[in-house]
Amino acid sequence: MRDTYHEQLDDILADLVQMSQAVSSAVRSSTTALLEADLHLAERVISDDELLDAKQADVEHRAFSLLARQSPVAGELRTLVAVMRMVAELERMGDLAAHVAKIARMRYPEKAVPETLRANFIQMGDVAEKMVVSAGQTLNDRNIQVAQELRDRDEEMDELRRTQFRVLLGDDWPYSVEAAVDVALLGRYYERIADHAASVARRVIYVVTGEFPETEYWPQP
Amino acid sequence: MRDTYHEQLDDILADLVQMSQAVSSAVRSSTTALLEADLHLAERVISDDELLDAKQADVEHRAFSLLARQSPVAGELRTLVAVMRMVAELERMGDLAAHVAKIARMRYPEKAVPETLRANFIQMGDVAEKMVVSAGQTLNDRNIQVAQELRDRDEEMDELRRTQFRVLLGDDWPYSVEAAVDVALLGRYYERIADHAASVARRVIYVVTGEFPETEYWPQP
Repeated sequence: MRDTYHEQLDDILADLVQMSQAVSSAVRSSTTALLEADLHLAERVISDDELLDAKQADVEHRAFSLLARQSPVAGELRTLVAVMRMVAELERMGDLAAHVAKIARMRYPEKAVPETLRANFIQMGDVAEKMVVSAGQTLNDRNIQVAQELRDRDEEMDELRRTQFRVLLGDDWPYSVEAAVDVALLGRYYERIADHAASVARRVIYVVTGEFPETEYWPQP
Repeated sequence: MRDTYHEQLDDILADLVQMSQAVSSAVRSSTTALLEADLHLAERVISDDELLDAKQADVEHRAFSLLARQSPVAGELRTLVAVMRMVAELERMGDLAAHVAKIARMRYPEKAVPETLRANFIQMGDVAEKMVVSAGQTLNDRNIQVAQELRDRDEEMDELRRTQFRVLLGDDWPYSVEAAVDVALLGRYYERIADHAASVARRVIYVVTGEFPETEYWPQP
């Protein structure tokens, strides 16, 4: 029975890693859909989000069952509690990718992102996608080093958003109010994806060390 | 020892209710700070947010300790797992109220919200504050009825945001791009506060009944 329990816990962790891969793929696709005004791809991100929701419900249920049946202690209890939070954060990142795709769909056949900010959004999408991948790796390897690198990437995302605001609120914004509103919300969605990825990493550190990293450097979960 | 355990669980629930009161007060104050360009009040909401962060860490720690020491089952296990998620949602609502206050502070002595949308934001603030209060009551009374009413209020919030977008993206928006960006982000913050309140209620239903309510009517946690 003990073996089965560990197998079940391993399966849950493997599913979380797989979920983080699905989320990073959703982030990449939604960025492409946004920048290329690809309606087909946007629709796919939006409909695939239901799969992530179902996966969350399934993993959460299984983690809860293990908790109820096995009454784990110490590191395993920390792991299961962290799993339940992480799976919610991954599901939320999927929602945010779907929000990006919905703006792409809403503006189709136009592109929601004006040319001036195209490079900025390519970088935002890139940083967000890489952060989700790293968060997944951290989860898999329980590697605190990778978790700490995520902090730097999160700062990179914040800097990209500051650049965005400077362009958006400069005296010479030549585009519509609608474009400004789209950019402001899109920037917020990418920033939140990054925050959640950093938060997942923060929880990995907690699972591995039993201590949360210094909060002043980390976004709150 | 069993008595002590129940007392500790009751204390945790009481702290959650108290936290929901502090959050609803933060939502009210941030709305006032925003609409009246009250710098002093904005600063207070921002600095008080640290208290909510500390409270979250404290409650989460105590809930985890109970879980580790008592290995509760069934309803009590569900309660403790839900507590850990709820406390994170309450802390997040506090962050969002602080985000509102930060926009008020950034635009001081100007008002961030243009006159045309003042009534809309008064209603948004009112709905958000009431939802947080109701979520707290639900928590206290484990009253599914109140939890279900939160669903209707959440729809009210969505409708207020749609109205906002109609004004913002109408052909005759007479204000700056900056004002449009502020409004779009502020609207998003209020909408998220409402989502989190509805999510807390959804978890109360889960604790009381052991089943999540139909997801089609409820925002995902």
